[in-house]
Amino acid sequence: MGHAGILCLMSLEKPSIRPGETTLSFDAGTADDARLVFIGRVRSPWSNRAECPKNMRLAREAKQGASIELFEPFRAALQSLETGRFVHLLTWLHQSRRDLAVQMPRSAQSPSGTFALRSPVRPNPIGLHLVRLRDVDMETGRLAIDAVDVLDGTPLLDIKPYFESVDRPSEA
Amino acid sequence: MGHAGILCLMSLEKPSIRPGETTLSFDAGTADDARLVFIGRVRSPWSNRAECPKNMRLAREAKQGASIELFEPFRAALQSLETGRFVHLLTWLHQSRRDLAVQMPRSAQSPSGTFALRSPVRPNPIGLHLVRLRDVDMETGRLAIDAVDVLDGTPLLDIKPYFESVDRPSEA
Repeated sequence: MGHAGILCLMSLEKPSIRPGETTLSFDAGTADDARLVFIGRVRSPWSNRAECPKNMRLAREAKQGASIELFEPFRAALQSLETGRFVHLLTWLHQSRRDLAVQMPRSAQSPSGTFALRSPVRPNPIGLHLVRLRDVDMETGRLAIDAVDVLDGTPLLDIKPYFESVDRPSEA
Repeated sequence: MGHAGILCLMSLEKPSIRPGETTLSFDAGTADDARLVFIGRVRSPWSNRAECPKNMRLAREAKQGASIELFEPFRAALQSLETGRFVHLLTWLHQSRRDLAVQMPRSAQSPSGTFALRSPVRPNPIGLHLVRLRDVDMETGRLAIDAVDVLDGTPLLDIKPYFESVDRPSEA
């Protein structure tokens, strides 16, 4: 049996794995090392994966805008967060599997380890998105943002202000 | 009773809150909206909070170096991750409280909401650290990094490659 045959058998056993991909020895989704609270949700124009931009560059190019709905208990924590500034959003990519060690992105020529990729498929499916705040309403918890590359309804974990002094690579 | 008296009473009731700070209506540490797996731990020169640098700029200035110990099941996911590149680390700041909405940083003149700060105290105490890879050993899971601003032993959640196209603010 040739290489293609082995890959074909692998595909039959685990139909959702592409040739070149490998799984972890367990599903990280079964772990319970720490627990999260959802602080809000992302409202985006994207209701299915096919139309959702694959990264923030493509999301910005789509010029659609997006927003955040922050849940009531967390709105007081918006104090001093100014319109116009850049922030990192951390999201919980709730539809992503958590068991791949090596992945073959659709557009790639060769496989890469999960930690060399920005794929949503990760042991902890946390998304990192640098966005710009267009409006901040502490009362309603609605934050308008320039763009986002996640599905509508994606849970939000954190908002962190961007600081050039720590968030930009320095060659020093 | 004057303003100072009210603050004093508040301090008596919740001794660990500084004047100007407010709590959430609940402790986010009691939530269970999603669960994490620890993929490794950070090895740093900092064994207590007093000596731990407060941000990555100060950590780099300390010129101490640091490393990551990636747990065995996750080492295959390092494939294609190259020495020299910048990556974001996501850590679990396990010693941080999770119930503050408004905080008064030690060096600040006025309080700010949690989401306007990079304080480790957050509903989800996830740290974001841009570091440079000095060495990657897939076999042992040891990654040498230029610096880090967390305590020795801090759990690791994710490693994400830095890409200028998505991780740098653009004015466009």
